[in-house]
Amino acid sequence: MDAVHEHPALPASAQALVVTNQTVGPLYGERLVNTLKHRYSVVHTLELPDGEEHKNWQTLNLIFDALLQHGCDRKTVLFALGGGVVGDMTGFAAASYMRGVPFVQVPTTLLAQVDSSVGGKTGINHPLGKNMIGAFYQPRLVVCDLATLDTLPERELSAGLAEVIKYGPIADMEFMAWQEGAMEALRARDRAALAHAVRRSCEIKAWVVGQDERESGLRAILNFGHTFGHAIEAGMGYGVWLHGEAVGAGMVMAAELSMRMGLVDQAFVQRLRSLIARAGLPVKAPVLDAADNAGRYLELMRVDKKAESGEIRFVLIDGPGKAVLRAAPDALVRDVIDACC
Amino acid sequence: MDAVHEHPALPASAQALVVTNQTVGPLYGERLVNTLKHRYSVVHTLELPDGEEHKNWQTLNLIFDALLQHGCDRKTVLFALGGGVVGDMTGFAAASYMRGVPFVQVPTTLLAQVDSSVGGKTGINHPLGKNMIGAFYQPRLVVCDLATLDTLPERELSAGLAEVIKYGPIADMEFMAWQEGAMEALRARDRAALAHAVRRSCEIKAWVVGQDERESGLRAILNFGHTFGHAIEAGMGYGVWLHGEAVGAGMVMAAELSMRMGLVDQAFVQRLRSLIARAGLPVKAPVLDAADNAGRYLELMRVDKKAESGEIRFVLIDGPGKAVLRAAPDALVRDVIDACC
Repeated sequence: MDAVHEHPALPASAQALVVTNQTVGPLYGERLVNTLKHRYSVVHTLELPDGEEHKNWQTLNLIFDALLQHGCDRKTVLFALGGGVVGDMTGFAAASYMRGVPFVQVPTTLLAQVDSSVGGKTGINHPLGKNMIGAFYQPRLVVCDLATLDTLPERELSAGLAEVIKYGPIADMEFMAWQEGAMEALRARDRAALAHAVRRSCEIKAWVVGQDERESGLRAILNFGHTFGHAIEAGMGYGVWLHGEAVGAGMVMAAELSMRMGLVDQAFVQRLRSLIARAGLPVKAPVLDAADNAGRYLELMRVDKKAESGEIRFVLIDGPGKAVLRAAPDALVRDVIDACC
Repeated sequence: MDAVHEHPALPASAQALVVTNQTVGPLYGERLVNTLKHRYSVVHTLELPDGEEHKNWQTLNLIFDALLQHGCDRKTVLFALGGGVVGDMTGFAAASYMRGVPFVQVPTTLLAQVDSSVGGKTGINHPLGKNMIGAFYQPRLVVCDLATLDTLPERELSAGLAEVIKYGPIADMEFMAWQEGAMEALRARDRAALAHAVRRSCEIKAWVVGQDERESGLRAILNFGHTFGHAIEAGMGYGVWLHGEAVGAGMVMAAELSMRMGLVDQAFVQRLRSLIARAGLPVKAPVLDAADNAGRYLELMRVDKKAESGEIRFVLIDGPGKAVLRAAPDALVRDVIDACC
């Protein structure tokens, strides 16, 4: 992070605004601001409240308020210092402020470093659905400083590992096998293991997004485990389960559905479940509604962005290392939910 | 409007949402919905409150609420039936809902037909500035039905003429000369005169936007009169002066500034002022602050989106038919404000 001001991809401007949250700001805010002062005449800071439950319009508006109160113009560069929530909101603010100003991601969580900071998906939640309002808007630069992971709570490290694990079944079984050997090192925050996990995850994500930025097809495979996962997050109330935790249990459900669709065998599901558990993630999904649990899951999944005309499209594993987007019979989905909760 | 469902550029989808307002909806809503039912299985309607003062997040959110409540997916087509406010908000909702769904403009005011519906600028106002939050997002189709102008209040017809007049000084003096001969016919809503005004305005706008969609340079000339105009709108409170009225007085101010910068002569300013007056528009700007009127104008103009590092960039006429973007000494701007208010 300390040399970021020297990076040639950094856009020129008089002003910069560092957007962070009340947890990350006190840890790394001053360091980033001091670095950026070598490059920008004026560097403002804004601390947002921390947590997925604040990923809404009210919080987003704090960024617009700050930009306008400081008289920030069209060239002002926004820096997102924090996890996925800060990155998504800062990115959407950058996409929308004066119809677009440049922004840079400085992710400080594993989840943001391996997933959300790369690929240009930005946005906020709506009471009726996660990430329903947003933009495709690419950062000019993503700065991953592995040292920031030292202060990451263990629960959030595990949540980040969910997105690392995801890349194996959908694209790279060699990466999955490497993780099976490196899981202890990753959880112990071994710098070399983390470096490989972050680099390989970003490579796979960049390869996929490079072919399909707007998610008209291929990109949707990055949402493996996310259709069930989003239902868990929305059903429990945003912020109760971490995104990565919901994706962990969601991947087990999606793998189970893949098996019941005849695409993978039981051994593969077990192998994935075991890796997810070793990452410290839940492999059992929560009951969202005691009266009609499967019905509640289905209802929540029908508003998923991948759904079309009310038909839910699942990311399934079509043999280890390859993903497909496919609808599934409701009865089969209900069986999966019953089996996994 | 009645044949719009047959247009090949109309995107395929199961659902469509017509967004209109409480004034236009009762006049043309049913007609558009009935037409669209030939093409879409389900056509929803949403009526927003009417007026620039409602061009804010709260109203925008009504569109997101409706889309989510109806279970609208990523293919749902939004139709903006109304004036610039409806078009700008519906366009921004389309840009942001699930990070982008297709939309179609059906402008029912002259201002929207000749200006705001074409070019892909969408957005909402912020208490500290007009159109500060938005996106560049192109409609799939713009449907101009001149018959809808029959119900347009006279004051709004005049406001629309401001944007028609604008195209002459910045790009086409022949068009300005035509308007000088056709102004009475335009105000009497002569169908042939309106057809030429709308067609030529859209041609010029499309030519400019085609070269510079994101307003990195040339496109800014379309904002002739808008820097002063936005200050008038913001200073008086959004909705007190119509946008076109503010642009009318703003063009006189910008022409006056061009003259004081030595770019055009007094005769040209007088010729433009006369045409603006004949369109039924104000040529005298309002006093925004009795104590320090010029200071208040300058303060409001410094948050204009074209400003850079606090320096206001004016669209000036560099000889009739040609516009330039240029800064101006504060003292000269103060003189212009004093002379025009």
